[in-house]
Amino acid sequence: MKLSELGEFRVIDLIHKIANKFGDPQQLSQRRLLLGIGDDTAAWQGDCHIQLATTDTLVQDVHFHLNTITWEELGWKSLAVNLSDIAAMGGFPQYALISLTLPADLSSQYISAFYEGMASLAAKFGVSIAGGNLSSAPYVVITVTVIGYSEHDELLRRSTAKAGEQIAVTGHLGLAKAALEVLKNNIKLPTETIELFRQRQFRPIPRISEGQILLNHGVKTAIDISDGLVADLKHICKASKVNAKVFMDRIPIHPLLKANFTEYKKLALYGGEDYELLFTANKEIIQRLKRVLDCPITVIGDIVKEGLPTQVVLLDNKGRIAPCEGNGWDHFRDVRLTHEIT
Amino acid sequence: MKLSELGEFRVIDLIHKIANKFGDPQQLSQRRLLLGIGDDTAAWQGDCHIQLATTDTLVQDVHFHLNTITWEELGWKSLAVNLSDIAAMGGFPQYALISLTLPADLSSQYISAFYEGMASLAAKFGVSIAGGNLSSAPYVVITVTVIGYSEHDELLRRSTAKAGEQIAVTGHLGLAKAALEVLKNNIKLPTETIELFRQRQFRPIPRISEGQILLNHGVKTAIDISDGLVADLKHICKASKVNAKVFMDRIPIHPLLKANFTEYKKLALYGGEDYELLFTANKEIIQRLKRVLDCPITVIGDIVKEGLPTQVVLLDNKGRIAPCEGNGWDHFRDVRLTHEIT
Repeated sequence: MKLSELGEFRVIDLIHKIANKFGDPQQLSQRRLLLGIGDDTAAWQGDCHIQLATTDTLVQDVHFHLNTITWEELGWKSLAVNLSDIAAMGGFPQYALISLTLPADLSSQYISAFYEGMASLAAKFGVSIAGGNLSSAPYVVITVTVIGYSEHDELLRRSTAKAGEQIAVTGHLGLAKAALEVLKNNIKLPTETIELFRQRQFRPIPRISEGQILLNHGVKTAIDISDGLVADLKHICKASKVNAKVFMDRIPIHPLLKANFTEYKKLALYGGEDYELLFTANKEIIQRLKRVLDCPITVIGDIVKEGLPTQVVLLDNKGRIAPCEGNGWDHFRDVRLTHEIT
Repeated sequence: MKLSELGEFRVIDLIHKIANKFGDPQQLSQRRLLLGIGDDTAAWQGDCHIQLATTDTLVQDVHFHLNTITWEELGWKSLAVNLSDIAAMGGFPQYALISLTLPADLSSQYISAFYEGMASLAAKFGVSIAGGNLSSAPYVVITVTVIGYSEHDELLRRSTAKAGEQIAVTGHLGLAKAALEVLKNNIKLPTETIELFRQRQFRPIPRISEGQILLNHGVKTAIDISDGLVADLKHICKASKVNAKVFMDRIPIHPLLKANFTEYKKLALYGGEDYELLFTANKEIIQRLKRVLDCPITVIGDIVKEGLPTQVVLLDNKGRIAPCEGNGWDHFRDVRLTHEIT
């Protein structure tokens, strides 16, 4: 069967089964493994701390187009998406390894710009670029691996959401996708508006300290929004075996998104690449977090027991069930063109 | 300037400079870093052990061709080349993260075979496949990251070779390249001969325990032979600021290589992808190692002070200087076609 017929998540299941078939559950590395294949970040019990490692690949003309993103932004974003995975665990990032495949006729000034973007973000979060690999290839493929740790005996996970908890989100949603819409449809907007959207798409700031504060305050369940609010909430629901109700009117929409896009709700629900944290916790914890965190925290719904018509139910301002689109991103079924300009 | 004009090693220097410009030498991750950009493996001081992390990328039609390597071999080799980097440090590998870009119309049975090859090697060395990333892309790019540690306060390094030490190598050299020659020129040989060559090229066994034993016995300097004996010896010479004399007649040649290739010396000197360990140490240490190691250990030359006509000097059986070719593999200057059949 083709990968596109099987779909990304069944391919991951297949890989998981094969790794299990050969792996000895008694070997030390297996016994210490806390989160393995199928999660965004691997975690294992180190000698003193829980260790974290995550990897993400960006492929030219699949995840980015060189005529819409600058090399400096590409360096920043390649690291940011990995740091966001560490943030979603409540962890501290430490070291990054960068594997690049590049055409041999590329100008070295682009590589300088790439590393300047990446190194400036790394410095912001105390991360050292510790090595990597260079290969020539017909097009650009960037694989970043970030290694870190958790200061606690715990991690933020996807699988710990409980009925009765509230669902909350940091920041505003939909802005990163708005940047792509502006590029795709060549929409004319004031420079500051364009710059806001571009920053969210091309220079996202991972919620590292926010993730740590969530963990410090007793939050157990979080994910970073990369695939989109609905898709990532479904990941939590599936892993936790719960359902979720989301009140669409409560979703945090930036005024500049609302002012410029009639379909702002759709962008916020399904746009993705927000790299905000989506988490669940009881009301008291969320109230405390609202006081200690610098960024907006918005309660958007509730975790409920299974039994709703679908895993994630969207409710409009009159409490009526609204249609919910999409099943989340599938790398083999969907053709990913983050920027659809070719 | 184009990457091909600048060359791989000056590109690495450029990256190093930019990372330094932004990095704060006082930040904790920087202070703990023992080996960073420019080495095959990153190393830093963890809470209890030295931590190791290495990454390598294999690109379809650059590093491999799908009509000469099986998917099972490809899975094995992708992990093996990374484990070999850990072996060259004297370290223990623990966890692997696998990033794959794959065409969506690929049959899933190939991915099963790929992971069976990889997982069988992982199990051999107690490594857990802890996660990774899947993306669709027009062709196959495999990036493997391996994380491990050293049981000692020390590592095998490139930069510690001293004049007066002997140069030694594990196993036999040139067999991996012989497999490519057989494929390229469609050479007819007995099945067992072909199988030996293929195994060395497509299912190399990283010298993990040998690397640990070298470190245990006081060896300070080692590298794994991936680019070729001469090229990798030059890496040691450059990092250690020494020169090397190699007696060509002492290079360990497998009888089946000698019997089938008149140019067997060339294959052994420049072929690469042997994944044997090349190391330097004093005579007494090497004598002890010959007794404790199961694999052949061959002394092939001496480390001398700088002042030879070139960094690595090859001597023939009469002690005359023989011409030394090549400057080692450069990913941007050389077009890498490991298997030149298209």
